[in-house]
Amino acid sequence: MAPVAPRSGDAIFANIERVNAELFTLTYGAIVRQLLTDLEEVEEVNKQLEQMGYNIGIRLIDEFLAKSNVSRCVDFRETADVIAKVGFKMFLGVTASVSNWDAEGTCCSIILEDNPLVDFVELPDTCQGLYYCNILSGVIRGALEMVSMKTEVTWIRDVLRGDDVFELQVKLLKQVPEEYPYKDDE
Amino acid sequence: MAPVAPRSGDAIFANIERVNAELFTLTYGAIVRQLLTDLEEVEEVNKQLEQMGYNIGIRLIDEFLAKSNVSRCVDFRETADVIAKVGFKMFLGVTASVSNWDAEGTCCSIILEDNPLVDFVELPDTCQGLYYCNILSGVIRGALEMVSMKTEVTWIRDVLRGDDVFELQVKLLKQVPEEYPYKDDE
Repeated sequence: MAPVAPRSGDAIFANIERVNAELFTLTYGAIVRQLLTDLEEVEEVNKQLEQMGYNIGIRLIDEFLAKSNVSRCVDFRETADVIAKVGFKMFLGVTASVSNWDAEGTCCSIILEDNPLVDFVELPDTCQGLYYCNILSGVIRGALEMVSMKTEVTWIRDVLRGDDVFELQVKLLKQVPEEYPYKDDE
Repeated sequence: MAPVAPRSGDAIFANIERVNAELFTLTYGAIVRQLLTDLEEVEEVNKQLEQMGYNIGIRLIDEFLAKSNVSRCVDFRETADVIAKVGFKMFLGVTASVSNWDAEGTCCSIILEDNPLVDFVELPDTCQGLYYCNILSGVIRGALEMVSMKTEVTWIRDVLRGDDVFELQVKLLKQVPEEYPYKDDE
């Protein structure tokens, strides 16, 4: 079923509880720094950030569904649009766009020009392999898994690595139509 | 000099960039969980959270001074009031109150009834010694150190430990009147 009058990301964002973006940015920076200290290997930090994002995503989807009035999307194209235009606005206060669709409609890019996670961030030379915002790919993967879509989310471009925008490739691996993870009484 | 027309926490909070509070709450929860996994000892986690908060506080004070129009406070009493009424509102969107002053005016409690960090949080039995919100005590200590006040910040009451409110005791240890860390032209 197509979404019935989903609310715009702006409207939702205006009406939910929020905290100061700089506090969030600095707190996220503190996590990354902590992981770099504890895990040493940049690759391990990337993995851990993605896993933390996944754990957040599988819970954040509840808030998303509850506040956005978005119901089941007709296809993956619509899903990607909703993530970019409603999801990013609702949670981070920024708007993303969708592009680079493949012919099958199962792989696209989400493009972010603005990203509050990286304010004041510069990567030192020792961290060049780091996907600083890797928590975001985990959040998307986790949230989509809870609505029966197995995806692979990878960074294609990253402003911290010198690119002009952030580009996240989201690839649909498998869709299980009815394996909805919640019971009706939950 | 007493603050000249400081802006209210509400007014500032309405006009700054913000992110979704639930995203912040879940992200903070992910940090705590990560630290519990990596460090094992609850006491170490408390220390680490405080240190992370300290590192955030020494940077957040810039945003606070820039956005709040608060200038030098006349005394520690005024400082505590500003933290409770402007600082907490500006960063977390909640209001705190100040009480339990000692006779010298160097020790008081900041009382928080509402605290977005702990939404959906319950401590398992294995974490009973955890000060889940210890990042907050670090933020206060770090921010005050940047305006020349050495303080000790400790939890007196904690809703996660069964108390009715959060109570943070802030004790002024030493005040260095002119060791202001900023140059006038910054």
